Amino acid sequence: MLRAFGITGLPVISSGDDIGAMIAGRVRAMGVHVETGDVVVVAQAIVSKSEGCVVDLSRVKPTEDARHYARITGKEPRLVQVVLDESKAVLGAYRGFILCETRHGFVCANAGVDQSNVGSGRVTTLPPDPDGSARRISESLESIFGHPVPVLICDSEGRPFRRGAIGVAVGVHGMDPVESMAGRRDLTGRELETTEVCVADMLCSSAALVMGEADEGIPAVVLRGFEPKGTGSSSDLLYERDVMKERIMGGEMLDHPDN
Amino acid sequence: MLRAFGITGLPVISSGDDIGAMIAGRVRAMGVHVETGDVVVVAQAIVSKSEGCVVDLSRVKPTEDARHYARITGKEPRLVQVVLDESKAVLGAYRGFILCETRHGFVCANAGVDQSNVGSGRVTTLPPDPDGSARRISESLESIFGHPVPVLICDSEGRPFRRGAIGVAVGVHGMDPVESMAGRRDLTGRELETTEVCVADMLCSSAALVMGEADEGIPAVVLRGFEPKGTGSSSDLLYERDVMKERIMGGEMLDHPDN
Repeated sequence: MLRAFGITGLPVISSGDDIGAMIAGRVRAMGVHVETGDVVVVAQAIVSKSEGCVVDLSRVKPTEDARHYARITGKEPRLVQVVLDESKAVLGAYRGFILCETRHGFVCANAGVDQSNVGSGRVTTLPPDPDGSARRISESLESIFGHPVPVLICDSEGRPFRRGAIGVAVGVHGMDPVESMAGRRDLTGRELETTEVCVADMLCSSAALVMGEADEGIPAVVLRGFEPKGTGSSSDLLYERDVMKERIMGGEMLDHPDN
Repeated sequence: MLRAFGITGLPVISSGDDIGAMIAGRVRAMGVHVETGDVVVVAQAIVSKSEGCVVDLSRVKPTEDARHYARITGKEPRLVQVVLDESKAVLGAYRGFILCETRHGFVCANAGVDQSNVGSGRVTTLPPDPDGSARRISESLESIFGHPVPVLICDSEGRPFRRGAIGVAVGVHGMDPVESMAGRRDLTGRELETTEVCVADMLCSSAALVMGEADEGIPAVVLRGFEPKGTGSSSDLLYERDVMKERIMGGEMLDHPDN
């Protein structure tokens, strides 16, 4: 059985707050405890705020590039400028979003720049080192609970071909985010075709169902019943650059007669 | 709190089995019960097998198209032929997979054709009407538990820019798979930017963590603590065709200086 406990009662987070200690305190106060084998998922928004990754849009000067992408996407030029500042590369511009490669190497919409939960005219950016953020929270939890605690930093992201955002991991500490099924066999003894499973994103999606998106105020979730393995990092979530490039550039297109 | 109970002890499923009744029987035998507000997630593999959606590859004759895509993808021509037969359109061919639009309108790798859990030389295809499959299972559960039971049919799918498969919904009955956050406000009172949340895929991902991929034999999961809303269908998971097309064709590409 998998169980997901939402951690409530955290105050509004400000730059410099030790959110690891704050989460641990609330976990204890709620009588939940963190057991060996539990995974703690923390919302990117509070991690970014605790690290001061907040941009006041009134102080941003949009470049000509930003105005160009603003016209295509229908987004505000200052917001687009922050997206460009957070990006290593722009991969495409569409109605409503820019497809970016972030400084960390994530390919996602708008480089993870988010207008939620931070007040009008301000946006959060992804933490510069989300694995480091996860590690620091993990260390706080370990110092209180006396055993290593895997931590995931969770963001919500759309996908190109399905409506609606899901929870995904942008920071990882103390577990493998992707588990290989290579060599494992199915019910009939056949070796498995789907050889990689993104357990980190599925854990973040489980947590996101508990967090909700709006005013519930549940920025952290303790997940119990999944046994994390290994000691990976968020870079394990990324394909090699040549694979990414092939996918972005389109592979071999369209000579099936039904097209 | 969200809880996910794995349903074990189902026999190997054959064509014609009433899996709704079988799942209900096992749920009762395990003492779990299905409460109002629970969602039942069922693995696509057993739904397909119960409906006879199994193809013996030795009976498939690959066309020239199939051989062409087999060379690009490195997949077996007979398997590729089944993928083409299941597709309304081929959108691209890459190392390891063909990006297809299935008969149902899903855009996914290999049209959902799966070599797992069905024995060597055979593949499962997606059920022809996955929402109907979900409805029939839901009706079986309702007849036993005495209240409507939302049901999702779960498949595992990769994503273009992140490693590892996650659980997604291919069949929906008795709930909205995508919830709109439009008009809802965040902690600061600002209207939410991410206006759609794919609760169905996040529920399927939670269930998939319990199911595992290999020999655990957990083809159904009861999820408790998420309150499903509405009465949608799997078509709610799909973007309009012009949006899909823009995304497949690439939008406006690449004139940012960092590229």
